Amino acid sequence: MTKTKINADLIKERSKCTFNITELTNLIDGGAHLTEERKKREEKVLKEGIHIDQVPSEYLSHKEKYELAIKKASLMFKLLRKWQEEENTGMENYRAVLGGALGSAILEDGSPLTLHYVMFIPTLMGQGTVEQQAYWIGRAFNVDIIGTYAQTELGHGTFVRGLETTATYDPKTKEFVLHSPSLTAYKWWPGGLAHTANYCIVMAQLYTAGKCHGIHAFIVQLRDEETHMPLPGIKVGEIGAKLGMNGTNNGFLGLEHVRIPREHMLMKNAKVLEDGTYVNSPSSKLTYGTMMFVRVVLVNDMCNYMAKAVTTATRYSAVRHQSQPKPDEPEPQILDYVTQQHKLFVGIASVHAFKLSANWLWNMYNNVTAELESGDMERLPELHALSCCLKAVSTADAAQCVERCRLACGGHGYMLSSNLPTSYGLVTAACTYEGENTVLLLQTARYLVKAWQQAAGASQLTPTVAYIRRVTSGRRAPPFDSSLTGLIDAFHTVAAGKIGLCVANIEKRQKEGLSYEDAWNMTSVQLTQASEAHCRAILLLTYHEQTEMQCKNASPELREVLSQLVDLYVVYWTLQCVGDLLRFTSISERDIERLQRWYEDLLSKLRPNAVGLVDAFDIRDEILHSALGAYDGRVYERLMEEALKSPLNAEPVNRSFHQYLKPLMQGKL
Amino acid sequence: MTKTKINADLIKERSKCTFNITELTNLIDGGAHLTEERKKREEKVLKEGIHIDQVPSEYLSHKEKYELAIKKASLMFKLLRKWQEEENTGMENYRAVLGGALGSAILEDGSPLTLHYVMFIPTLMGQGTVEQQAYWIGRAFNVDIIGTYAQTELGHGTFVRGLETTATYDPKTKEFVLHSPSLTAYKWWPGGLAHTANYCIVMAQLYTAGKCHGIHAFIVQLRDEETHMPLPGIKVGEIGAKLGMNGTNNGFLGLEHVRIPREHMLMKNAKVLEDGTYVNSPSSKLTYGTMMFVRVVLVNDMCNYMAKAVTTATRYSAVRHQSQPKPDEPEPQILDYVTQQHKLFVGIASVHAFKLSANWLWNMYNNVTAELESGDMERLPELHALSCCLKAVSTADAAQCVERCRLACGGHGYMLSSNLPTSYGLVTAACTYEGENTVLLLQTARYLVKAWQQAAGASQLTPTVAYIRRVTSGRRAPPFDSSLTGLIDAFHTVAAGKIGLCVANIEKRQKEGLSYEDAWNMTSVQLTQASEAHCRAILLLTYHEQTEMQCKNASPELREVLSQLVDLYVVYWTLQCVGDLLRFTSISERDIERLQRWYEDLLSKLRPNAVGLVDAFDIRDEILHSALGAYDGRVYERLMEEALKSPLNAEPVNRSFHQYLKPLMQGKL
Repeated sequence: MTKTKINADLIKERSKCTFNITELTNLIDGGAHLTEERKKREEKVLKEGIHIDQVPSEYLSHKEKYELAIKKASLMFKLLRKWQEEENTGMENYRAVLGGALGSAILEDGSPLTLHYVMFIPTLMGQGTVEQQAYWIGRAFNVDIIGTYAQTELGHGTFVRGLETTATYDPKTKEFVLHSPSLTAYKWWPGGLAHTANYCIVMAQLYTAGKCHGIHAFIVQLRDEETHMPLPGIKVGEIGAKLGMNGTNNGFLGLEHVRIPREHMLMKNAKVLEDGTYVNSPSSKLTYGTMMFVRVVLVNDMCNYMAKAVTTATRYSAVRHQSQPKPDEPEPQILDYVTQQHKLFVGIASVHAFKLSANWLWNMYNNVTAELESGDMERLPELHALSCCLKAVSTADAAQCVERCRLACGGHGYMLSSNLPTSYGLVTAACTYEGENTVLLLQTARYLVKAWQQAAGASQLTPTVAYIRRVTSGRRAPPFDSSLTGLIDAFHTVAAGKIGLCVANIEKRQKEGLSYEDAWNMTSVQLTQASEAHCRAILLLTYHEQTEMQCKNASPELREVLSQLVDLYVVYWTLQCVGDLLRFTSISERDIERLQRWYEDLLSKLRPNAVGLVDAFDIRDEILHSALGAYDGRVYERLMEEALKSPLNAEPVNRSFHQYLKPLMQGKL
Repeated sequence: MTKTKINADLIKERSKCTFNITELTNLIDGGAHLTEERKKREEKVLKEGIHIDQVPSEYLSHKEKYELAIKKASLMFKLLRKWQEEENTGMENYRAVLGGALGSAILEDGSPLTLHYVMFIPTLMGQGTVEQQAYWIGRAFNVDIIGTYAQTELGHGTFVRGLETTATYDPKTKEFVLHSPSLTAYKWWPGGLAHTANYCIVMAQLYTAGKCHGIHAFIVQLRDEETHMPLPGIKVGEIGAKLGMNGTNNGFLGLEHVRIPREHMLMKNAKVLEDGTYVNSPSSKLTYGTMMFVRVVLVNDMCNYMAKAVTTATRYSAVRHQSQPKPDEPEPQILDYVTQQHKLFVGIASVHAFKLSANWLWNMYNNVTAELESGDMERLPELHALSCCLKAVSTADAAQCVERCRLACGGHGYMLSSNLPTSYGLVTAACTYEGENTVLLLQTARYLVKAWQQAAGASQLTPTVAYIRRVTSGRRAPPFDSSLTGLIDAFHTVAAGKIGLCVANIEKRQKEGLSYEDAWNMTSVQLTQASEAHCRAILLLTYHEQTEMQCKNASPELREVLSQLVDLYVVYWTLQCVGDLLRFTSISERDIERLQRWYEDLLSKLRPNAVGLVDAFDIRDEILHSALGAYDGRVYERLMEEALKSPLNAEPVNRSFHQYLKPLMQGKL
């Protein structure tokens, strides 16, 4: 932490904290040794100073932003390679430094080299033969080449089967011919594709002997390794400026009859023989592994951004004073306003809720993988359904949380120096990438509708949907119980009720003559809501159970505040969803009024610990990167310091005065 | 409209439209002659080509963006001045060209000269004496000087009484000494203040004869008129990059004992005499006029941005195809997905709802002003309460609408060439400026609580809160009626119920020993909700009633679709607020299921008219400024054309390859 003078309000807040902040930090990291490790890694990377910009990148042109991103990403890769050689560590450092909070401290608006590690190498690992791996992964890992991964096209996104790019095998030359048959077939979006990567994995429809075999992966060289010039037939460039992620160098790629050797098809699973014979792959559900990994990483990323946002907004709210509700008293800290607590505290709880849920899902995946080894694939669809809705709900909640924190900082949250707008840009992007959220919710809904139908029959239900039987069994729901577990139960009842209504509505529409697909479509608004209700139930239960487990060895002081957070989260969502509870449970108006009171009392109880709770996320100033949120609370000084970095402020009079303003004022323009 | 080839899907959509699009356009504009006028004005401004950028501004550096904004704003002022001289028109052209949709077409991310017209001149008009007006307005109107308006400070926003800047009268020299006593006293945010304006109205605490008389307005010269250099004691600069509005040149201003003549205090109301005597102003509620005007303009602005966003997202959804729900059929237009209709159609309705409500409020204000003339100020607090909640709800709804439209365009909505992110930046800013939304909702709540107390007594209630008596009178609410007017009634019952609960909770907390202020604070989350419920009730009623009136002379075809939109809006909000209806009315589960069905059927009914409805907003491509939303639907071609404008795409190999990437790959970095 910086040694400068700390804002008096923050000193006061920290002295009021009832629990040991370090204890909570260790709990979040998963143990004191892991906190230690993280801190060492942060120190090691940040002391290099790669993250320090002379002029903040928001003042640069789009092109300069890219050039700065390349500089930083290259220096980081160099550092990582050196580190790797010195310590012979595994991938952890790469992951920690490229993704996650630390990575975003250095390349705050995305990196043009991320996909090299996040998609290019993993796809080679997952889909290349042993020989292909030996050759390509060696080159990639050593950064002799820079790769990316191109799937999405200008006209085709989440629906992968619709991709247009073709890879046609020519047995005469033993080559594949890659081709973009139309403008909408152009690859569009891959990070690093525009001006950075010289190799690319291209997903394309495989044709051999006149037959289409669906989507397969091909390695295509894009640029000359020496000159970096695009190779013949390769139309490559960037897709233009975006809401955020302007450091990622997202690109487009058109292929004009580009020939690649047969060996450049990744053939671990399916193969094309020299004569053009297609050899099918044994059914492989193993790609679930990568997908689960990506989704869990994504949920954790969301937690990092939420943690940054609530840290900033909470510290700012402790420093900022406003208004004068009582005539003769000074302006209170805005953190004392209950409306402000309402905006922030649920965000603090959300970080914990999603972090614990992501861990839980990952553990479950690992257990299920063990079952997989013995050929038992029964739980894969359940896992898939869970990861879909958890991705959708966590990204949507995180976007809302970050934006709410930004707005809670009033006008100052609108300044880029608050770092809240940039965080929002990165978080909201996740609502549409890696599967668009509405589409994902409908995938989960498909699973839930099936589960409902199974529940109506005799089949056994997988654990996370077993609650459905409560409703299908026709047993009357127990009377509403407003304890914590009663509320969590109620969410399950709601989810089951909503799924049941969807099924009934689909059937009704079918009886009226609609096809199943049309009846599904007509019900789809309700289906997404059922899917979300399912996810909320799981989240509440998981957060509660995992906190209980996590707290077993915690001090009573910490246990108390963590359980207040769980209470807050559950009661908050109960009040948000009170209409659902009124529809599907026997909750009464008196219950609701009591819950509202419970909620307000929880806000008051958490108030003295608010700053301690965000301090415990232990986000270094360099990573938080916010004038409003720094540990020392020198909010106004930092806002001014940041403003003075604007190149516009380097000159008292801008040249446009002489060119336009003065002639305008003198009637000479 | 452009004469290029129109996308086949859009041609099909337009041929399906059941009503006359021009008829609706005329209705929205307020008459065919007003449509004509608007179109002429648009043509006149756009044919100048000021809006055409060689390189889109999103690729420029922050400084270049400012320089471009000055260039465009100056050329526009020049055009307006010429126009003014030629046609001797009033302020309408200024308003239309500086604010509103047309203005945003030219300066898409804000203008550094807007506050000159929007705040500087109006404040001179409202607060200057006749002599002051004669001198200053003449200079300002002729753009001999450029002014802005500085109120907000680094440490002080919505709470105006907390401002720190002082203006101390010195009778010896007959001057005011303006001073910023601390860093937090620096003015912060005013548009154009940084490097553009040479004069400024400064709001400061007036001190004379050792006594503070509160906030008054002073004209301060900031820069030399010839050299534009800041005058002695003036610390001025820009506040730095923001989420949006990077063309507005928001600035800071520190004053170091700056002396201005006594005549530079705006003295229409209060005065300081030569000897320092303070002469109080007759109570002036007339500033309501400006405030109402600004809020109505703001709500209309919100409508413009919503209209742009739904136009873009709806046309894109007609052009975009995705997925294959039925095996042997082609990929459907995404507009056929009910989840997509759910995201878009309520946005179309919202434009109409808020536009009609803004007009209604403005008419009401004008009627009340007539009463004011005769000294009757009774309805002013009601108007104030209405304008507060309408500002809060319209800006929040607009932000959500624009963002939902952006997300409904999937990844492509994230491209700046969609224009959706920039619109969001402008709209979300309005959630915190001109009064932070939560603070405004609480102001309305104060009025509602008072009204409740009056209702309990014998006093008469003003019209927009008269519904409260329904609940306070103890009469049982009539049985739930799910007709349109029944639903609107139910919203009033909900609002009254929520206000009543707040009052009860405040009283309860007071009985438990809290002060009124603390009890209010503890209840404030509920108070904001009551305030929003009140606003929703008013919005639904107004939208319904005004549409009925507006449609009197409309064709049956148009009347039908407009009434479907009203139905959709009311049913949408009923389903959103179903928990409230369950709590405060006798709505049943069967009612809810019927309403859900009604909602889905309305989506289906509106589906064929969706493109026609957004076409009727009649937004020229130059104003829409979106690759996804242009009239011709050449979505993919335009995305690529826009991408190719990126300066990064001008060179096949960026210099950073030679500087960093190549050395990295060759192990030489």
